[in-house]
Amino acid sequence: MKELIERIQKHGKILRNGILKVDSFINHQVDPVLMDACGREFARRFADVKATKVLTAEISGIAPAVTTALHLGIPVVYARKTKPVTMPDAVLLTLAPSHTKVVMTELIVSPEYLADGERVLIIDDFLASGATIMGLVRLAQTAGSQIVGIGTLIEKSFEGGRELLASLGVPIEALAVIKSMDDGQIIFDE
Amino acid sequence: MKELIERIQKHGKILRNGILKVDSFINHQVDPVLMDACGREFARRFADVKATKVLTAEISGIAPAVTTALHLGIPVVYARKTKPVTMPDAVLLTLAPSHTKVVMTELIVSPEYLADGERVLIIDDFLASGATIMGLVRLAQTAGSQIVGIGTLIEKSFEGGRELLASLGVPIEALAVIKSMDDGQIIFDE
Repeated sequence: MKELIERIQKHGKILRNGILKVDSFINHQVDPVLMDACGREFARRFADVKATKVLTAEISGIAPAVTTALHLGIPVVYARKTKPVTMPDAVLLTLAPSHTKVVMTELIVSPEYLADGERVLIIDDFLASGATIMGLVRLAQTAGSQIVGIGTLIEKSFEGGRELLASLGVPIEALAVIKSMDDGQIIFDE
Repeated sequence: MKELIERIQKHGKILRNGILKVDSFINHQVDPVLMDACGREFARRFADVKATKVLTAEISGIAPAVTTALHLGIPVVYARKTKPVTMPDAVLLTLAPSHTKVVMTELIVSPEYLADGERVLIIDDFLASGATIMGLVRLAQTAGSQIVGIGTLIEKSFEGGRELLASLGVPIEALAVIKSMDDGQIIFDE
């Protein structure tokens, strides 16, 4: 998606640890107009999968997941990383490595909102190793739901996430695919 | 706002600890159409305050803050509760009591995105004691920004938050004001 790629080119920064900093428009400060355009684009690309629910993980998946769900006219559920007091005692829980890969993070969904027979579209900010998204897949499958698609704003195609998720046999869409970040240069797969 | 009040009447639940459970449409599962309508209503009510940025706190403030910012056409910043690796070493940080009031929570904003002279509209899901919102006010004021309005989806007017925030002298808008939750009954101030 041209608009997102241009924004990454202009405002994305590669940090020393190989992390792509996009917190001026995606995950600390958010550009709502851009997120709305991304949500509209996801809704267009997944128009045929007949999703009944969008699933994401807190925190940075929430903005694009909400705009996607808005354009599809379906609810969105965000998996929590800590169990709030409002959740029932029995929950759906899985573990996924954190982005830094040092610790494991819990992903928790209330069974009230992820039901048997639901058709789930997963939306998140990044597809890198695919570990967080696989955690969401496990939660949905444990609930008896079916995954019908996976969409992320940005894919780092050199981290293998797409290969990990390929066995699911569902469409995987990324709005900006980065194939290399070597030498401080962001190279897109266009 | 009639639509939100009706939803709380229909799907809100009072838990034993006096907590209002609205996680089927606001803060775990989110109804994006309702959040969009709430964002439009906030944009209407705050049309004259000339806000340049929306500020909220992760996690449950994000959805209404993003839709409000979308309808105002300005960016939104969400304060983090843990400092991500993408943030610079020097940050704006304050402490606010958590909702359970047992522990203190950190609220962290990067000085990159909250600047001197910014006109800040605070949006959050709940106004109860006002402690979280006062934390956001301190962050904005430390940055040299000016608070120009405060909006929350739900206000529990019996918890004193509005009185705490009154000294700021800015408009405070809540889309659903609850004046009592005694005896398992939600009574709105209409």
